[in-house]
Amino acid sequence: MSAKGTKAGWLAVAGLGPGDAQLVTSQAEAAIAEATDVVGYGPYVRRIAPRAGLRRHESDNREEIERARHALTLAAEGRRVVVVSSGDPGVFAMASAVFEAVEHGDPRWRELDIRVLPGITAMLAAAARAGAPLGHDFCAINLSDNLKPWTLIERRLRLAVEADFAIALYNPRSVARPEGFARALDLLHAACAPGRILIFARAVSTPDEDIRVVCLAQARPEMADMRTVVLVGSSATRIIARQGAPFIYTPRAVPA
Amino acid sequence: MSAKGTKAGWLAVAGLGPGDAQLVTSQAEAAIAEATDVVGYGPYVRRIAPRAGLRRHESDNREEIERARHALTLAAEGRRVVVVSSGDPGVFAMASAVFEAVEHGDPRWRELDIRVLPGITAMLAAAARAGAPLGHDFCAINLSDNLKPWTLIERRLRLAVEADFAIALYNPRSVARPEGFARALDLLHAACAPGRILIFARAVSTPDEDIRVVCLAQARPEMADMRTVVLVGSSATRIIARQGAPFIYTPRAVPA
Repeated sequence: MSAKGTKAGWLAVAGLGPGDAQLVTSQAEAAIAEATDVVGYGPYVRRIAPRAGLRRHESDNREEIERARHALTLAAEGRRVVVVSSGDPGVFAMASAVFEAVEHGDPRWRELDIRVLPGITAMLAAAARAGAPLGHDFCAINLSDNLKPWTLIERRLRLAVEADFAIALYNPRSVARPEGFARALDLLHAACAPGRILIFARAVSTPDEDIRVVCLAQARPEMADMRTVVLVGSSATRIIARQGAPFIYTPRAVPA
Repeated sequence: MSAKGTKAGWLAVAGLGPGDAQLVTSQAEAAIAEATDVVGYGPYVRRIAPRAGLRRHESDNREEIERARHALTLAAEGRRVVVVSSGDPGVFAMASAVFEAVEHGDPRWRELDIRVLPGITAMLAAAARAGAPLGHDFCAINLSDNLKPWTLIERRLRLAVEADFAIALYNPRSVARPEGFARALDLLHAACAPGRILIFARAVSTPDEDIRVVCLAQARPEMADMRTVVLVGSSATRIIARQGAPFIYTPRAVPA
């Protein structure tokens, strides 16, 4: 409620983290507790407990701009709206879609109270489970070619290897486009030693969690699906063998 | 306590996020609540409330390997140890130092129960405050040349621009080495249009927070210090002008 007594709607784009409730920030929880409306892809909205006074709006995963416009319309009507994303909303998730909708939508949407609430993105959760593979310079590339040409993905991957970044690959492989990740592996085979370390991290922090560490020579396209984030080590990434699962880390230092 | 009744020490490397207590995960809070010892750089250790039964060990910022060895020694003695980092421990923080100490230290350290607990790293918190500048492919580069040669930093920065990543620059500028960031800006001036968008995000989520959005032509080395993370937009990053602070975002799509 503003000082003038008018309806003060707002929109928060909140990251729910990779799945475990212990990895949600209390900032995101507080926004959800104050919300009148939660908007998002069905499986994320269903992570929010129903309560009186809360409307939950589930949408399909492909309708990001429509979902963003719906959320902005609700906020402009004075409602308190949380758009929920998994991971961090700013990393290959809903925040960018919301601002795209703002830029091209109703000019009044620009003056809305819009906040982005950060979360634990998949690559950080995956890295933590494996050790510290992103402990030196790294990059994140979305392998989905829904929204960009495959030639650009290949070009970025090639330059990332040349820069010797550790590389996090999001959305590596869908049922509709299984061939992209195989091509990415072909590119890595051509550019990296066969001992390069890869981590296939599926459904991290959920009951379905599966972490697999392989060297590039052993990597197969079928090891990834859309619930997997793939971490490709840099040339310096190391494996510490032990009785339990190995620790993987990238040293902080590169000798001159 | 293990099944045999021996002392079961453990070590958790926990990220405290950028500063705001609302951005600490409950997973990290739970580990701290169970700990007998908290180890870390002074300002981070002092974020943990004192309590009976908790020993707090503060160290200097430069002594990362010594700090890691100390924490591992305590865990091997059966103590429950949390090493605290700001942000995410796996991103230019303590996790990599701990595993480096494990690899080169007492062989028994390899079998310890060591967990990394992820946190909100500075670039994600900074991006959230500005909008969604990391909404497309991006990379993270540590500009500190304490641990790697400057030539490598320049080479990575050049390749990152060529790949058209958005770029997060950590540790851009210290009192001891003020010249590196000026050289990084020179490189950006040579490679990017003068309208390229930069975000100087200082002390995000703390009372000292300061977010400044400038185009490359206006950027000055003095705008950054060691509490700043600098986000450099890709060539596609956009600014949405409004009465309040502008929204900055990088669109999800790149047209073919």
